[in-house]
Amino acid sequence: MNKSDERRLKDFYKRLEKEEKMFVGYPVNTSFDYSDLFNFLSIPLNNVGDPFCSSYYGLDSREFEREVLNWFAKLYQAPKDNYWGYVTNGGTEGNMYGLYLARELYPKGVVYYSQDTHYSVSKNIRVLNMEHVMIKSRLNGEMDYEDLQNMMSTWRSAPPIIFANMGTTMREGFDSIQEIKKVLNNLAIPEYYIHVDAALGGMTLPFIDNAPSYDFTTGVQSMSISGHKLIGSPVPCGVVLALKSNVGRVSRAVEYVGSLDSTISGSRNGFTPLLLWYAIKKYGFNGFKKIIRNCIRTAEYAVKKFNDEGIRAWKNDHAITVVFPRPREPLVKKWKLAVQDDIAHIICMPQVDKETVDKIVKDLID
Amino acid sequence: MNKSDERRLKDFYKRLEKEEKMFVGYPVNTSFDYSDLFNFLSIPLNNVGDPFCSSYYGLDSREFEREVLNWFAKLYQAPKDNYWGYVTNGGTEGNMYGLYLARELYPKGVVYYSQDTHYSVSKNIRVLNMEHVMIKSRLNGEMDYEDLQNMMSTWRSAPPIIFANMGTTMREGFDSIQEIKKVLNNLAIPEYYIHVDAALGGMTLPFIDNAPSYDFTTGVQSMSISGHKLIGSPVPCGVVLALKSNVGRVSRAVEYVGSLDSTISGSRNGFTPLLLWYAIKKYGFNGFKKIIRNCIRTAEYAVKKFNDEGIRAWKNDHAITVVFPRPREPLVKKWKLAVQDDIAHIICMPQVDKETVDKIVKDLID
Repeated sequence: MNKSDERRLKDFYKRLEKEEKMFVGYPVNTSFDYSDLFNFLSIPLNNVGDPFCSSYYGLDSREFEREVLNWFAKLYQAPKDNYWGYVTNGGTEGNMYGLYLARELYPKGVVYYSQDTHYSVSKNIRVLNMEHVMIKSRLNGEMDYEDLQNMMSTWRSAPPIIFANMGTTMREGFDSIQEIKKVLNNLAIPEYYIHVDAALGGMTLPFIDNAPSYDFTTGVQSMSISGHKLIGSPVPCGVVLALKSNVGRVSRAVEYVGSLDSTISGSRNGFTPLLLWYAIKKYGFNGFKKIIRNCIRTAEYAVKKFNDEGIRAWKNDHAITVVFPRPREPLVKKWKLAVQDDIAHIICMPQVDKETVDKIVKDLID
Repeated sequence: MNKSDERRLKDFYKRLEKEEKMFVGYPVNTSFDYSDLFNFLSIPLNNVGDPFCSSYYGLDSREFEREVLNWFAKLYQAPKDNYWGYVTNGGTEGNMYGLYLARELYPKGVVYYSQDTHYSVSKNIRVLNMEHVMIKSRLNGEMDYEDLQNMMSTWRSAPPIIFANMGTTMREGFDSIQEIKKVLNNLAIPEYYIHVDAALGGMTLPFIDNAPSYDFTTGVQSMSISGHKLIGSPVPCGVVLALKSNVGRVSRAVEYVGSLDSTISGSRNGFTPLLLWYAIKKYGFNGFKKIIRNCIRTAEYAVKKFNDEGIRAWKNDHAITVVFPRPREPLVKKWKLAVQDDIAHIICMPQVDKETVDKIVKDLID
């Protein structure tokens, strides 16, 4: 590497460090330190195949991956003897996996998902070539259950595959499993599949008292949780959990690697399971509970501060996303605000403190 | 983190270091050092969206990703003003992307792929819900073009989507684009799609004189190349290249991140483009040429050595994979040999030297 390339890397790093300080618009925790694990980056780790089987490949972190999966399985009360999962490359892969399982179970199924669902889900559905109906959202970003009932009633002969959000992208709305099940009950639908996109909410709601519950005891059959959001990670990653009995339909033995090909990715990142394992060991349930309590407090502070200064801001119960009218473009860029139509949001991740909120408000009213 | 967890990580690292020395069965270069880039792991890099568009997210390595793509595009003579691509999470994603584009272009197309094709491709085809016909392989692992012609002739009304291998998994056979085009010509088929799985061969053949050519001037429309194989990377990654005019059909603007959603993954690893950029800057075309020349020499040496000692081994021209009869199980495990039915192979990646070959042969004849 020549001097000018070296300098370029250095300058690039400095620029990133500076920009990171203005990072309030996306659900990404920037406060992490995994330097204890960097020595593993000298090894071509690869968790190719099934996390619960061995592999000839040998250089893998499967034992750590299984501990991570087990921790999440407990968090969502997945059945002890009938859960399966893996560490994914992020939410898109986890959601694709859940929908793939649903399609293999119900090839003639119809996917119902709200208009506030993350944009990658439409793409997933297209890749998987599935029938689908988009459901209206309420103003708070939650699914409109009346519209769901009307649509399901029209398509009553096809098994419904409900894609529920545990925190929608822009407004952090929570699609209620209880309300969805009421609709299924009203229409006397015995066979259905519920997948939960728990990208953000999967790491907040389980730590908040009296929050809506999303777990395998309520009829949920698969969940996708992001690792790079609330936990924080230098590279996108996530966890997908599913019922083992459903997974058996899609996996098959592959002699070449001496493992089961049960995952969407073939070669799989072996470093990210170590990151997640490290974070879980470092914080544990109570550590995360404390972190999320602070996020909620900051979000409550932000709503009040915005409103005190005359900016109409609001948030959902149990949410850490604060929604307000879209500001002018330079401020969107400066604070890396996520925007859609006439709204913008900040997400009170661990690095966002009251001082940052004050600075944003000051910029907005200036 | 408590003492026992710390010790566990240390012991795990030691075990991996030891196992890495016996790593000859998989196409993975273990000789890499990216420690110059570790500081970037303090930042939540995310190349979400299209590498050729900007994004509100801001913390990304897109400019480096584009340089990587440009280097690969030149290597395969992709049309300067009509190529597109991105850094993937590995071969599976790249192959899925190529097949996805092909399906969107030819919804009634039929995928033809040889029985020696990597196992993940069947899964990709299943996920994408595509019609497909498996073609017989020759003994050397290459596609049987007679069988291809017979099958295509049967399914003549459907546009063919040919999935060609630039190095099959077990025998490193090369499916010839020239032979495939002869078949298309014989059957007077005007519309077709050719995707190349260049997992391994994409980083060997362009550096070998008089090797079969796979490039965009020969009718190839997309290619998937692995980054963690010959280049070497601590986490799986790769590059997919395609014709920009085809990609326009699947991408769409996403306001939330202020970018185009043209990729399969949503959130995308921003660290792996830096790794690939670093390796390209470090070695350049001539550096890789030298590395691959050594790999070929070792493979030639291995074939001779195996045969001299009475073990029937062989390899394809321009290949670095040496195939021989499957040995007993303890040796498969010890050397992490990839096996299938009655054969095994070693792949002469940069870390495999003559001394290692000698040791394996000694073990095999003991």
